[in-house]
Amino acid sequence: MRPSGRTPEQMRAVTIERNVAMKAEGSCLVSFGNTKVLCTASVETSLPGWLRGKGQGWVTAEYGMLPRATGSRTRREATAGKQSGRTQEIQRLIGRSLRAVVDLEALGEVQVTLDCDVLEADGGTRTASITGAYVALADAIEWMETRQLTRGKPLKDSVAAISCGIYRGTAVCDLDYLEDVEAHTDANFVMTGSGKFVEIQGTAEGAPFDRAELEALMGLAQNGIAELTQLQQTALLS
Amino acid sequence: MRPSGRTPEQMRAVTIERNVAMKAEGSCLVSFGNTKVLCTASVETSLPGWLRGKGQGWVTAEYGMLPRATGSRTRREATAGKQSGRTQEIQRLIGRSLRAVVDLEALGEVQVTLDCDVLEADGGTRTASITGAYVALADAIEWMETRQLTRGKPLKDSVAAISCGIYRGTAVCDLDYLEDVEAHTDANFVMTGSGKFVEIQGTAEGAPFDRAELEALMGLAQNGIAELTQLQQTALLS
Amino acid sequence: MRPSGRTPEQMRAVTIERNVAMKAEGSCLVSFGNTKVLCTASVETSLPGWLRGKGQGWVTAEYGMLPRATGSRTRREATAGKQSGRTQEIQRLIGRSLRAVVDLEALGEVQVTLDCDVLEADGGTRTASITGAYVALADAIEWMETRQLTRGKPLKDSVAAISCGIYRGTAVCDLDYLEDVEAHTDANFVMTGSGKFVEIQGTAEGAPFDRAELEALMGLAQNGIAELTQLQQTALLS
Amino acid sequence: MRPSGRTPEQMRAVTIERNVAMKAEGSCLVSFGNTKVLCTASVETSLPGWLRGKGQGWVTAEYGMLPRATGSRTRREATAGKQSGRTQEIQRLIGRSLRAVVDLEALGEVQVTLDCDVLEADGGTRTASITGAYVALADAIEWMETRQLTRGKPLKDSVAAISCGIYRGTAVCDLDYLEDVEAHTDANFVMTGSGKFVEIQGTAEGAPFDRAELEALMGLAQNGIAELTQLQQTALLS
Amino acid sequence: MRPSGRTPEQMRAVTIERNVAMKAEGSCLVSFGNTKVLCTASVETSLPGWLRGKGQGWVTAEYGMLPRATGSRTRREATAGKQSGRTQEIQRLIGRSLRAVVDLEALGEVQVTLDCDVLEADGGTRTASITGAYVALADAIEWMETRQLTRGKPLKDSVAAISCGIYRGTAVCDLDYLEDVEAHTDANFVMTGSGKFVEIQGTAEGAPFDRAELEALMGLAQNGIAELTQLQQTALLS
Amino acid sequence: MRPSGRTPEQMRAVTIERNVAMKAEGSCLVSFGNTKVLCTASVETSLPGWLRGKGQGWVTAEYGMLPRATGSRTRREATAGKQSGRTQEIQRLIGRSLRAVVDLEALGEVQVTLDCDVLEADGGTRTASITGAYVALADAIEWMETRQLTRGKPLKDSVAAISCGIYRGTAVCDLDYLEDVEAHTDANFVMTGSGKFVEIQGTAEGAPFDRAELEALMGLAQNGIAELTQLQQTALLS
Repeated sequence: MRPSGRTPEQMRAVTIERNVAMKAEGSCLVSFGNTKVLCTASVETSLPGWLRGKGQGWVTAEYGMLPRATGSRTRREATAGKQSGRTQEIQRLIGRSLRAVVDLEALGEVQVTLDCDVLEADGGTRTASITGAYVALADAIEWMETRQLTRGKPLKDSVAAISCGIYRGTAVCDLDYLEDVEAHTDANFVMTGSGKFVEIQGTAEGAPFDRAELEALMGLAQNGIAELTQLQQTALLS
Repeated sequence: MRPSGRTPEQMRAVTIERNVAMKAEGSCLVSFGNTKVLCTASVETSLPGWLRGKGQGWVTAEYGMLPRATGSRTRREATAGKQSGRTQEIQRLIGRSLRAVVDLEALGEVQVTLDCDVLEADGGTRTASITGAYVALADAIEWMETRQLTRGKPLKDSVAAISCGIYRGTAVCDLDYLEDVEAHTDANFVMTGSGKFVEIQGTAEGAPFDRAELEALMGLAQNGIAELTQLQQTALLS
Repeated sequence: MRPSGRTPEQMRAVTIERNVAMKAEGSCLVSFGNTKVLCTASVETSLPGWLRGKGQGWVTAEYGMLPRATGSRTRREATAGKQSGRTQEIQRLIGRSLRAVVDLEALGEVQVTLDCDVLEADGGTRTASITGAYVALADAIEWMETRQLTRGKPLKDSVAAISCGIYRGTAVCDLDYLEDVEAHTDANFVMTGSGKFVEIQGTAEGAPFDRAELEALMGLAQNGIAELTQLQQTALLS
Repeated sequence: MRPSGRTPEQMRAVTIERNVAMKAEGSCLVSFGNTKVLCTASVETSLPGWLRGKGQGWVTAEYGMLPRATGSRTRREATAGKQSGRTQEIQRLIGRSLRAVVDLEALGEVQVTLDCDVLEADGGTRTASITGAYVALADAIEWMETRQLTRGKPLKDSVAAISCGIYRGTAVCDLDYLEDVEAHTDANFVMTGSGKFVEIQGTAEGAPFDRAELEALMGLAQNGIAELTQLQQTALLS
Repeated sequence: MRPSGRTPEQMRAVTIERNVAMKAEGSCLVSFGNTKVLCTASVETSLPGWLRGKGQGWVTAEYGMLPRATGSRTRREATAGKQSGRTQEIQRLIGRSLRAVVDLEALGEVQVTLDCDVLEADGGTRTASITGAYVALADAIEWMETRQLTRGKPLKDSVAAISCGIYRGTAVCDLDYLEDVEAHTDANFVMTGSGKFVEIQGTAEGAPFDRAELEALMGLAQNGIAELTQLQQTALLS
Repeated sequence: MRPSGRTPEQMRAVTIERNVAMKAEGSCLVSFGNTKVLCTASVETSLPGWLRGKGQGWVTAEYGMLPRATGSRTRREATAGKQSGRTQEIQRLIGRSLRAVVDLEALGEVQVTLDCDVLEADGGTRTASITGAYVALADAIEWMETRQLTRGKPLKDSVAAISCGIYRGTAVCDLDYLEDVEAHTDANFVMTGSGKFVEIQGTAEGAPFDRAELEALMGLAQNGIAELTQLQQTALLS
């Protein structure tokens, strides 16, 4: 039995509210149950030095967490003087995931930065960030297209992410915090709307896992991602 | 004529929504027009080293701004590796302002940290932070009192803040961003509910100001703070 | 009774010794009693990036304190790896105060940096810094004018600063360290030679203050600044 | 055809030379072709603060690369002032992988640090690091057991790692640098000697990958890890 | 011919003014011509962790330079966020030099920190710092002895330092800035009052030097140090 | 009697193995007994800003130590966030020493960086680094000459270094770690193949030393350097 009473394949209630940041070219507030992430997409014409004059753009991401998104207060990274290894790992993952569905040449010589700031954390912040960042990105690209700032259609596909894990011996979908701390295996899947893998990260937190368990997690993830893809499309059409 | 069409003494619409952060002992989302700040109060039993064993508590504050709270993206301080001088100046001001209305001995040996994170910035973020932080602090102290964790009544008074300035020759109340960049004089007032000053910071951005202008700003501030005090009390009773 | 035996309106002995740093374009050693600050003005032709090509110059300030300027040794900021929030707040104040009396276009495309290094600290280091920095700046601008490096008369007025406070119930002028630690209200005033305000910073350290107290402090400040202005002019004529 | 002329399932020549660091409790130089990593295991009795008094030990890892391990000189991280996000991500992976085969309670209250320093880099440095670090760890634990410093048998299994990828449309095992920069999909597998997964990280560098491709990579990895496990055992028996 | 018109063996005018920092346990302003260094000695009862409980004290040094001690403004190290390699090298030298004449057990369990801050730089700042720091240290130790805080006589000898070099083919004593930038060989000698060496640092800036040149520099140094020792003693008796 | 049984003038076994780093323009592994340093020379066409357009090149050095080169694990500088003062002092010394034998104009507008990374530390790491770095530099310059990238013959002489010290009252050559910690005087000599001094650094660790002792150390050093010069030439001819 899951702490939330969900069935193994059941995700939390997922909502995506667009245009929450007045000044950003794209934005949304994405919620996976009690996990809430504010995602903004910022279009800038200044590229990182190593990309200038290469005839293409760039998509990157930064991740942060408000100090009291967590049960006890977490130290602010700006005060600590650096981003933790965990933060850097997550924002690199978000950036890679989004770039996988963008044609950087069609984007033109601009940089789009996805900022994913966690307002409330209850497990799955990185997968919620990717799922929401896609919506913010899609809006920012539409903003660019309206102004004829792109060189074609930069968006090749959609992308979403979900975490699955082995909780008390059962493969379950969309771990919340209580499940996450106890799960023996925790896997994050990033997949495109067309059902292909962009990234798989499976980690044995306790006992190593076998291939059958991995297959079970993959099955849950594929269904979950299909559902999230549908939610993204609905949100973008509203 | 003000860009927003307000009269000189008219503040923006101010709203205070409590209990927006599930895990914090106190929290609110405060809006002064399009300026929105998420304020949380965290109660912790670990005191800074220099205060331990002195029989009193501490109230401190940290301030941050999401990268896309602003018209063009601002660099994340966690990436830059340090808080800017402006950020430190603001969070020191918030901390001092709140401590002015707290009896630190009655608080007991705990530290309350007020985190003020700007979700949208349209001028007056520091004064909105102080005004909202008071509400979060009041809720956190009530949370403590309910659990009999204090040594008496720590709250001696309420506190709120407003910015006023000389815009195109006229003293106006509650500057928004458009007014702020153009104002010749910008002053922040922090006052208690009982009408006394906690902090005055008046700065000539262009031409120096004279005593008559300062008096005009003080008058506007006193009225504005009275209104804010009323809003805080209403919010805390709801 | 003040610890020093001074009357409420009496400042400490203030001296300004010019040309103490052989290599600087302007310099002075300013003393407010036992508070001693070495102020230098450096003229450089390299402007910060955001100002280049705008047809104007810039005036900025840095503040430091020798480790043993204080009763017990203070950690060196270069060793700590960063400037404290207090240091940054002070140097931002010094810079703003000086810019208030400079016509940046007339200055031409140069940057003048005021370095204020406290050799001995006995209260009022920021106000002594501003008062001394003006003299160093005036000398540096005269040095520029002699070489026809300006585009007109950059100095529009003089500027000086004083701290006042409520000490044991009485408003007193030019707080020394013993008074400063005990004062209930501490206010710094920066004013021009022509008697206008550039900056007011009033802080309730203990009990909030009322408007009558603020008026009393302003009165003391106006007299004190007039006296300091006279001392600056005398020093610059010697 | 692979640049090295290897068949798709063929690993590079892998060698493990033990006891190369005189002073470490365990050490080896591991080579995967031209990739060479010096791995040392250091046993220390000081635990990180959050683990003290919990009746268990800890295993952690740090990763570094000599500046000229690469084709053009890479900036030294000690000079840059911080470890890159990539470095932190790798050393977190190494630590997690090793902890998966250690019984931390049986280890006793000590910390074992695995230092993996890349002397030459030709692709696959993180997987070589994990494979070598296991050998250094096994030697360090034997060193401890000889001195009766453990509370039982800390080593539960062995662990090794390999990278596989889709190179020009074919799934290949143990990517070298030339293959790595061109591969469309790159996956790192960490597995135990008993054939279970500790970690899977698959990333689409260009086009997303499908489940059949993932299955092919897993098959190659399982064979490769079996071979590496054999090499580890042989090395530890020599 | 030396730029200053001095003979090869002639030092600049050296003056040592004691008790210039009111709050320090020992202090002096030392001048070697236009090079001026403020030296303070601070006695603290907190020892670095690795020395606690070892029954001895410690003597350490920190070095700094005011931004405008130099011909063009030097960046403040507190702003840069770290001490330069040169600064660290100098302060390590000062600390070692002073420790060479102190009996650390007789000192008792205290730390004496020598702060050497260069007010004006015209060559030889590190040797002036050592020479002045000895006087500040002697005063601080006398301050301790008066209060019976030592365990005997901590000062075993005096110590002073001088730079010599090969300037235009001639060995000269006490290089000033103009000589320093041009000298082919630059050597710093730290010697005790009893004529023994504490430290020799000879560097070929251009052409390597031979033994005869080194002997000539040593001869000059021995005479110069004897003169400085006399000046230190005179200063300490005044 | 020396711990190693060596005679006072006897160096440890010194070996120099060239071309150990496949990708570097020059490299060697130098051993002084159990001290082992990997030296690489990297040729880069990007010069530091202050040297551009001056018609000359630059030679610089960086020094590092693997965490377990030492008896107990040393903290990694990349983790600590900065290079220690000791590291910076050593790498400045290596750079100066190598530049003393290079004609920077003949080198052309390139920068050669010598990276000296200590794999095992048993005393004398800085002198081994200099001795090995020369060999790596000579190979890199020959690599450049083969490609006609220089403007003449950049190498003016060879350079090597040795440490000598007073160990239990006797002057001995090439201190190992056990001798180093106990030696009363420790001196590092950097000399050219033609027998001239590039750098002398003599430090009294305990009692100050006199001129006779210094002469004895110099005599040992001259013989040792002659031997090292021979070994360098043999290595470069092999």
